[in-house]
Amino acid sequence: MKRNYKRENDLGFGTRNYGRYNRFLNKDGSVNIKRRGRSLADSIDLFHALITMSWTKFLLLVIISYFVINVIFATFYYLIGYQSFGNLEHGSNWKDFSELFFFSAQTLTTVGYGYIYPKSISAGTMAAVESMIGLLGFALATGILYGRFSRPKSGIVYSKNILVAPYKEISGLMFRIANSKQNELIEIEAQLIVSMKDLKTNKRVFLPLPLELAKINFLALNWTIVHAIDENSPIYNYNAEDFEKSDSEFIIMIKAINDTYSQSVYSRNSYKYDELVYGARFSPMINDTDKKGQVWINVSQLSEYEPAELNVLV
Amino acid sequence: MKRNYKRENDLGFGTRNYGRYNRFLNKDGSVNIKRRGRSLADSIDLFHALITMSWTKFLLLVIISYFVINVIFATFYYLIGYQSFGNLEHGSNWKDFSELFFFSAQTLTTVGYGYIYPKSISAGTMAAVESMIGLLGFALATGILYGRFSRPKSGIVYSKNILVAPYKEISGLMFRIANSKQNELIEIEAQLIVSMKDLKTNKRVFLPLPLELAKINFLALNWTIVHAIDENSPIYNYNAEDFEKSDSEFIIMIKAINDTYSQSVYSRNSYKYDELVYGARFSPMINDTDKKGQVWINVSQLSEYEPAELNVLV
Amino acid sequence: MKRNYKRENDLGFGTRNYGRYNRFLNKDGSVNIKRRGRSLADSIDLFHALITMSWTKFLLLVIISYFVINVIFATFYYLIGYQSFGNLEHGSNWKDFSELFFFSAQTLTTVGYGYIYPKSISAGTMAAVESMIGLLGFALATGILYGRFSRPKSGIVYSKNILVAPYKEISGLMFRIANSKQNELIEIEAQLIVSMKDLKTNKRVFLPLPLELAKINFLALNWTIVHAIDENSPIYNYNAEDFEKSDSEFIIMIKAINDTYSQSVYSRNSYKYDELVYGARFSPMINDTDKKGQVWINVSQLSEYEPAELNVLV
Amino acid sequence: MKRNYKRENDLGFGTRNYGRYNRFLNKDGSVNIKRRGRSLADSIDLFHALITMSWTKFLLLVIISYFVINVIFATFYYLIGYQSFGNLEHGSNWKDFSELFFFSAQTLTTVGYGYIYPKSISAGTMAAVESMIGLLGFALATGILYGRFSRPKSGIVYSKNILVAPYKEISGLMFRIANSKQNELIEIEAQLIVSMKDLKTNKRVFLPLPLELAKINFLALNWTIVHAIDENSPIYNYNAEDFEKSDSEFIIMIKAINDTYSQSVYSRNSYKYDELVYGARFSPMINDTDKKGQVWINVSQLSEYEPAELNVLV
Repeated sequence: MKRNYKRENDLGFGTRNYGRYNRFLNKDGSVNIKRRGRSLADSIDLFHALITMSWTKFLLLVIISYFVINVIFATFYYLIGYQSFGNLEHGSNWKDFSELFFFSAQTLTTVGYGYIYPKSISAGTMAAVESMIGLLGFALATGILYGRFSRPKSGIVYSKNILVAPYKEISGLMFRIANSKQNELIEIEAQLIVSMKDLKTNKRVFLPLPLELAKINFLALNWTIVHAIDENSPIYNYNAEDFEKSDSEFIIMIKAINDTYSQSVYSRNSYKYDELVYGARFSPMINDTDKKGQVWINVSQLSEYEPAELNVLV
Repeated sequence: MKRNYKRENDLGFGTRNYGRYNRFLNKDGSVNIKRRGRSLADSIDLFHALITMSWTKFLLLVIISYFVINVIFATFYYLIGYQSFGNLEHGSNWKDFSELFFFSAQTLTTVGYGYIYPKSISAGTMAAVESMIGLLGFALATGILYGRFSRPKSGIVYSKNILVAPYKEISGLMFRIANSKQNELIEIEAQLIVSMKDLKTNKRVFLPLPLELAKINFLALNWTIVHAIDENSPIYNYNAEDFEKSDSEFIIMIKAINDTYSQSVYSRNSYKYDELVYGARFSPMINDTDKKGQVWINVSQLSEYEPAELNVLV
Repeated sequence: MKRNYKRENDLGFGTRNYGRYNRFLNKDGSVNIKRRGRSLADSIDLFHALITMSWTKFLLLVIISYFVINVIFATFYYLIGYQSFGNLEHGSNWKDFSELFFFSAQTLTTVGYGYIYPKSISAGTMAAVESMIGLLGFALATGILYGRFSRPKSGIVYSKNILVAPYKEISGLMFRIANSKQNELIEIEAQLIVSMKDLKTNKRVFLPLPLELAKINFLALNWTIVHAIDENSPIYNYNAEDFEKSDSEFIIMIKAINDTYSQSVYSRNSYKYDELVYGARFSPMINDTDKKGQVWINVSQLSEYEPAELNVLV
Repeated sequence: MKRNYKRENDLGFGTRNYGRYNRFLNKDGSVNIKRRGRSLADSIDLFHALITMSWTKFLLLVIISYFVINVIFATFYYLIGYQSFGNLEHGSNWKDFSELFFFSAQTLTTVGYGYIYPKSISAGTMAAVESMIGLLGFALATGILYGRFSRPKSGIVYSKNILVAPYKEISGLMFRIANSKQNELIEIEAQLIVSMKDLKTNKRVFLPLPLELAKINFLALNWTIVHAIDENSPIYNYNAEDFEKSDSEFIIMIKAINDTYSQSVYSRNSYKYDELVYGARFSPMINDTDKKGQVWINVSQLSEYEPAELNVLV
């Protein structure tokens, strides 16, 4: 007897069923799984952190680093002694320190006014080291700023809910996406997968839900992505309760090309059963031509829906 | 009865027919649809704007920013008072301000001549802040300049018109492209789609027009892209009036690889029915070998055509 | 008689059998083959070396270069003579040199305090040259730092051993991978190839070993990659000795997409026969949900295995 | 009668036969076709030129630009007058100009020693402008240096000749490639196309020559690329004269992935009939293991061949 040792579709989340309510994909598309037990070097991925942190945090970090480095060097200079610095009018400890702090800032940024200058070998060496650190730090900042800006972002926004809506003479599972950014997205491809508890085996299964249309050329207007719930669908005849009982999570994976940079971008999202609305349809989004003949669309209406009677299947 | 819930080719422009004359793709390949109702953060995509604006605007922006930042810091220094700056010869208000403006410029660019220098804590702090802003601004400028230059551009130019020309024993829909840049384009793939009003349903349909040749390896000479209008073509037997009545728009999507950077580049264009010339053929472009045996071609003749009798179909 | 001149799968390692124990792929995924006889220009690939060397080496190189360049310029300035420098208090040779060394550092980093300054034409020219070299060197450092940080790295870690383990009613060849980094890997594809000595021809053959599952969407947990050793497998009925006799090397090629940068990343690894454990199974890795419902996994257990009786094939 | 309006393989070089000896692809892989009649803006692609010019030219350009810009600003400062500059000891015209030239260099590089400094409004303004130009120029240089270094280069080297060699019981068209660089090339794919004059129609045809093996996983050793000249080959039974009469050019297109940067790289080459050696075989390249078990290969023997009797076909 010949057997087939090929396995079916697997997302990489395993088949274990965890007791608690949990989701595999967060709403921002990141995977909701923590990896522990990694080596220290692997846990700290400096560039990754600096590239992905928020702008507020990043700018705060830059300012604090700048302040701290200057405090450190000012301390060194202070320990070397005020006599090592030309033109420094000796005063109170605090005055000396503040003067040396400013000297440090002028050295780190390579401004170098020079009204205070290092006279001794130790002061000169320390200043030479600081200015080099300044240059390297600046080089780093340049790279990080460029990395932050040029990182591919999809800008795809999703409707807040996924709906079971009337669709032709049957029902359809539907959600909407749009592009919230200025850049153009082209060659958009979507994939929809349901993660459900198999009630017999108590294992988690991942089943692809075929789409009525899986690829469009431009994400110019909104796009309503539809899975037709026909007799071949794994969720055929499911009602609102069935989705909850099977702890359903709908996982969406979208790939597109950002036309400005000719870069592939990836976007993911998931809807848990409690974000599914059973028996509703999306309200049409206003789109029309203005006086110049340009078509426009109102992206803020992406999530709006209204109740709708589902088709009764005989 | 089994039904098929797969939808046919859709570009992402929807099927609505707007009353006015409008086009989906602009001549520069951008999508002619405005997205309204986006959040403020999404509307302002600084990097995108700085990367895609014209050089004139960009340089103007740099100059104005430089001037404005210096005015702001000069004002701060002026408010702190001339006594806080060593070597500053006190004069008229205007003279003081202009001296401090130059001091600001020397701090921002980190030139730091130092003939004027900050003496007080407040002046020193402000100068330390300005020089750091200068460094970060410069880091930003470096990234943006690199981003502007390295952004993939296809350099593909299109003939001004699309023609219905005699082609073998039938007719063909034809347009020409060439590469206007120095870099080499390889693996060029073209797709042609017609967007037409279906006169019965009054809906817009998008139909692919198969090409006689859809891919070439080098865009070395010009390339005449041809759709043979045979009995399978959706525009079979169309005359000039039919194209206008159905509000036809021919949408072209081209993908290629820019050999200098091994980058995929995308180019798009569209022809409305009023850019279609019925009964014409492209004039041959001059191309020959020079004395050294090198083949050359004259790109400026790309759009030239001459009247031509179409084949009569029996 | 028609013949087929197509060759089968070849990795590019040729078919020669070298007498000594050797491996084609190192544990870091690099190819274990040296290319000799290259031109000097080809052998020295500066950017490649600067990008791929360790951080310790790189920082050491930066510091040494900084020191050496300053020594060189200080020597030039010293040869030009102390009289060419304004404000330089002439002292011992050593004192003069050290002052000029600091002047050089201040010029190279463009700090330019100016308490010492070039007075003669030759000193001015040399300083103008040095400051330009400083700027270019800094530009270079910026690029290299960015290149080092933004270089795509997969972060995939492999189990220390490859196992022949019980698998369903037969045996399977198995190894495990996980992601050791913070970033997300998506669309992971794996390929497994065995390189063996053909005992009859004494030639080396490269045979693909089909996988039970060759692609997953997320590398969120660990992934156990399995080749089912059924009757179609080239290593069907092999025991531990057979793997050694045939000098087996298992070559793994993995391709994935790093989600942070939307970049393709490649990872490779190989197991020689002495890294194969015959009759063992991987210990399950602890993974559970914490209080907040987040699933976690302990990556440090990746290589753990326990002895296991293999299925007897009838 | 149904006709087929699909065209066969076309490289994009057209079908015209130029009288003179010429080649479509240069030995460096660039296309040997000049595009005339382009607009000025298109002809001048500054970034492309700066990225692709030789290092010698590039460094010369940087040095000359630095010199010229300083001369220009020195002239401005000179016209403004020596009185506008503090600390400038007025001397001969030449001395004043050289002092101002150095002042310009110190401003452009933002060294700013400050022993000379601008006193008047006009001098201050000009210096503020120059230091900003310096910063922007430096930003540009940073981007260009990074662009030059990070540009994907394949490093593939080709044997000097293409051979018709004995191959199994027939003949084969063969050439060899190797990687001359330190980085690893993976997933190498090759395509071979012959461009010939069709002696009946006098048109140029482009025919693909199928390869015995079209893809390897690693370019670790050398790779001999073979087209088996069997009865299906377009060059079946061709002798040395036939290749010349038909003005044959063998066009090679190779695609690979540079493993260091996970970048696709493209390499092209062509052999004209006078680079074809009829009746020869490549000498085996020395490759062996050293004491540590590492395999090595001598790349410098890539082009070596020896005469060989071709198989007689019955």
